[in-house]
Formats: sequence, structure tokens, C-alpha cells
Amino acid sequence: MKKIINDPSTVVAESLRGFALAHADLVTVQEDPAVVYRADAPVPGKVALISGGGSGHEPMHGGYVGRGMLSAACPGAVFTSPTPDQMQDAITKTDGGAGVLLIVKNYTGDVLNFETAAELAAAEDVEVRSVVVDDDVAVKDSLYTAGRRGVGGTVLLEKIVGAAAERGDDLAACEALANRVIANVRSMGLALTACTVPHVGEPSFDLAEDEIEVGIGIHGEPGRQKMKIAPADELVDRLLDPILEDLPFTAGDRVLLFTNSMGGTPPIELYLAHGIAERKLADAGITVERRFVGPYITSLEMQGMSFTLLKLDDEMVGLWDAPVHTPALRWGV
Amino acid sequence: MKKIINDPSTVVAESLRGFALAHADLVTVQEDPAVVYRADAPVPGKVALISGGGSGHEPMHGGYVGRGMLSAACPGAVFTSPTPDQMQDAITKTDGGAGVLLIVKNYTGDVLNFETAAELAAAEDVEVRSVVVDDDVAVKDSLYTAGRRGVGGTVLLEKIVGAAAERGDDLAACEALANRVIANVRSMGLALTACTVPHVGEPSFDLAEDEIEVGIGIHGEPGRQKMKIAPADELVDRLLDPILEDLPFTAGDRVLLFTNSMGGTPPIELYLAHGIAERKLADAGITVERRFVGPYITSLEMQGMSFTLLKLDDEMVGLWDAPVHTPALRWGV
Repeated sequence: MKKIINDPSTVVAESLRGFALAHADLVTVQEDPAVVYRADAPVPGKVALISGGGSGHEPMHGGYVGRGMLSAACPGAVFTSPTPDQMQDAITKTDGGAGVLLIVKNYTGDVLNFETAAELAAAEDVEVRSVVVDDDVAVKDSLYTAGRRGVGGTVLLEKIVGAAAERGDDLAACEALANRVIANVRSMGLALTACTVPHVGEPSFDLAEDEIEVGIGIHGEPGRQKMKIAPADELVDRLLDPILEDLPFTAGDRVLLFTNSMGGTPPIELYLAHGIAERKLADAGITVERRFVGPYITSLEMQGMSFTLLKLDDEMVGLWDAPVHTPALRWGV
Repeated sequence: MKKIINDPSTVVAESLRGFALAHADLVTVQEDPAVVYRADAPVPGKVALISGGGSGHEPMHGGYVGRGMLSAACPGAVFTSPTPDQMQDAITKTDGGAGVLLIVKNYTGDVLNFETAAELAAAEDVEVRSVVVDDDVAVKDSLYTAGRRGVGGTVLLEKIVGAAAERGDDLAACEALANRVIANVRSMGLALTACTVPHVGEPSFDLAEDEIEVGIGIHGEPGRQKMKIAPADELVDRLLDPILEDLPFTAGDRVLLFTNSMGGTPPIELYLAHGIAERKLADAGITVERRFVGPYITSLEMQGMSFTLLKLDDEMVGLWDAPVHTPALRWGV
């Protein structure tokens, strides 16, 4: 295993230390329990938004903490759910009196631990609601999931609901909006290579020299099928067709197209795939109104990509465009 | 070779097509000769800034075209200099009457072709000046270079001089500022893995399972030495010590620390290395006033990283902080 680390057991803590130094103007990083806080938390009268999950998917979620997005993020060990004490600390310290919305990706560990933390917080009279993102159309149940997995849609949700919380929407409105995003977002990904979890020390699965895995999750868990590498035109079809059929997306829809790198796929390939997808959507009569292209929800160094498609309405477009200032996303400010 | 492409011979053109669709609000992409233009070029009375180089280093340079940075970028084939006709087209179409500054990374092909283009433009009475970036302390001469290579310092220069041009500095002032950046910036990188150029189809060099290359260039050209992978603390020393000794940087200096991923190194490792470097600089009495962490000058999917250190003065800090709006960098707007 070749990685720029000192010791597999301290990777997350040491990485957070560097992240804290790099972004001290935006976030405060608490080491134990590990939580990334918006520097000005709690914001009185504002709904707090909290997410979290295993590390290794950066910039998700710590990179999305800041004005117009998350109030706090709880990083677990690599590909491992954070613990209820992290979440409880985050809830207590970000609650500004307007309640807390937990944004949970649908993985069994995350769901259970966030539930426990919500119960503990409720006992302390903090109003807590949860939403569960399950946008991955690839598989119904998986290695780590009952039901669909939560993937790229989570990033879009955090941006859109983050903007709503920032403008002063109350907890019920934020929850309803989050569920509207969940109802209108679908994703699917593929992997060209596996990634290596530091404390495991070897690739999380095997792929032959000419083989890819379609329908992959963000932890390297199996997808729909292994197949031979094919031209990009075909790969885009393999991802986009199941997404379009699922919701379904149809002619006349307005969408945000999010073309995501799993980490190791370079921009030159990502933009190539993005272009094919845009033209395919145009041919289907679907209007791409907003684009988002880059490594925004990753699996360490894995080569691969995913598409996420969100059916937009006017309110979502406005909230997407609203100012955001976090370590990983910044515009309008 | 596993890549998300259709055909090695059309990778750059197809990628530019996707880039054009994704960023139509910011840039105009001309297919033949291939040039990425700022959407509002030429800007009357403003010095035009042009750069270019082989593709495969994205977001450099096309991702840096826009307000507060470059006027145009000329993308060559992967790891291959663009041609004089691309540069000449860029000069002609961005000149707003205040002259053109060419920002050239020190690679033999780039230098020759930009020189030819400058001569052709001069014959058409466009005032053209050139600056050559050569910030890589790893090697004096290399496979593609007489003298030092131009690497990460280029990105910082494009941001700082881009802001100066935007506020109305004239050509002589932009040129002098660019040379001041060049005089104060130093870089060095290492690779954990090689990358594969699409039209070559196999990795550009060999590294054993436990081996890294220190002092690597951005094309996979050999560096100072191969060595066994070592703890991050030692790797940071191997990069930072030669940088500090070279200028030299000394106690009391104010710096921008740019921690760059070669493409395939994930944020969790990059921030870990960044944190070590910040503490090392603090120990040396050097003040890190600005940070820049991410994959901003890459070598396709190569795993590895580089540090770039720029000695700052007040004017440079102000220009670094000034608004920028390009596909890859955006703040203050």
C-alpha cells in the first residue's frame, strides 16, 4: 500500500488537523469526539443542518460545512459510520433554538447511529428531524444497506436545503424541502479501479485489467455487474438510462446534471463523459439548467464516476444559486 | 488501458466539448484551432493574459480562463505543446489594445512555440511580452527542459497577475509583477504512481509496489531519485527542505502554501500532508498567510503531490484575494 500517511490508525485525525489549519477562517475542528463545525455555530434562530458518514468520501461532508450549507459534519473512520456521541455533540453545539435537521445517507450503520443520537437529543428537548437519502438506482439492497444507497444526491440536498436554512426557513420547511429533493434525485456510478482503505491495506475488490464494475457504491461494494471496459458513449448510456427510467425523467423536465469523479478519474475524462450526457439529455428533450462537474463525493483514490440527476423547480434553482462559502464550495461571496 | 474515453485520438476535442457545455456562461471554446476564450474577450483597454500547454494537467489552463485570471488558454494534445497557430489565434482575439502577456511554463516545446507566435503577432503590431515560469527546484535540466521546469507556481502567477490585469495594470506592470512572482516561488513534487497517456496506452514509467519518485515533473519525467515509500512526515521533509533552501525562505517570511494533488491523491492524504507542512513552516518561523489545497495542476490520474511556496508581499496578498470567476476557481463573486 502506497499512501501519503504516517500510520493507518491516525489518518483521519491527522487529515482533520491539516483541514483545520487550511480552513480556520470557515470551520472549527473538534478532535474528540471528531466534529467539523461551522466557525460561527450555533447561529441563533437558524435551523442547524448536520450530516456525517465514513471518511474517505471527501470533500463530503466536512468540506461542505459553512455558510449556506452544513452547520456540522461528523467524520467516521474511513468507510465507517461515525458514532452517536459525535452526532450528539454536533446536535448540542449547533442548535440555535430552531431545531436540527439530520441528513443521513442510507447505510445501515449511519441510520442506526443517527437515530440513537436523535433520541438522546430529544431527551434534552432539542427538536430533531431526520431525512434519509437513497438516490442510488443501481441496487435495491446492498452489502451495507437495506433499501437503496445514498450517494451523490446528498451533496445537492446539502446545498439546496443549506440555502433554505440560511434564508430562515423553519425546521418543517427544511425537512419538506429535503424530502422533495430526495423524491426528485437519482444517481448511478461505475468503477474502473478499486481503492485501498488504509487500515485494510489492500484493494477492496478485484477488477481485471480490462474490467469495470457498473452500479458500484461509494465504498467499493458490488454493483450490478462487471463488464469489459467499453467506449465512453456506451458507459454513459449504462449509467444514464437506469437513472432516466427510474424516476422517470421525461421530455420537458428541467434538471441539474452532476457529473462526479470517484476521486481518481481526471477532469479530461470527466468532462468528456459530461459532454456526452448533456447531448443525450438534450436529445431526450430534457433541459440541463445547472451543471456540477468534479470530485464531490469520492471513494478515496478510486477511478470511476457517477451521474446524479435532479429534477429542478424554480425554488430549487434559486437555492442552488444562492451564496455558499465552505472549504469545498464557494460562490456568490 | 482503462479510461472513460471513446478514442485516444479524440480525447482532448471531446473533453473540450463537455467543458464548453458545462461552462458556457464563462468561456467560449473554439475547436479549430483549439482555444478556450473568456466569454467576453476581447476586453477593451485590458491587458490580455494567455497561457497554454499540453492537456492532461487540468484544471490548468482552461479552468483558469475567466474574470480575474486568464483571457485565453491553448490546450495541446496530452502532454504535448500547443502549436503556434493556436497561440496566434489567442493573441489576435484577446488583444483589447493594451497588449498581451504570454505565461509560459519552461518546457522546450512550449517556449519555442510561444516565441514563434509572439513574433507573428508582433508583425501584426500587437504588443506581446512573455514570462517563463521555472519554479521546480527538483532538477536543473530535464527530459523536456533546458533549465528548471515550470510547475505549480504557474497557477499562483495566473491568479495574481490576472487580478492585476483586471484592475487595469498596464503591460509593463503585469510583466514586472509576473517576474516578481517567478522570483519568489518554488515547487517540488513526488509521484506514487505513473499515469497513462491515452495515445500511448501504457504507464509512462515504472515504479515498484513500494517505490516512489521524488522530484517528479508533471509529465512523469524522472525526478531526483526513486526511494521506498516512507511516512508522510519524511515525505514532506523531502519536498519542503529543498524548496526552503533554494530561495531561501527564512524566518519572518510570509508565504502562500500551495499543497497540490497530482490528480489521483485523495483529499484525506493531501490535507494530512498540508498539516505537516504548516507545522513545519511555523517551526521555522515562517508565517503561512494563505493556503491553497487541491488538485490544481495535475498529471492525469497520477497519485502524488507537490508543494509550492510563494513569498508574499502586501500587493500579492491583495491580488490573491481579489475576485475571480473561472470554471475551476471562484471567489468574491
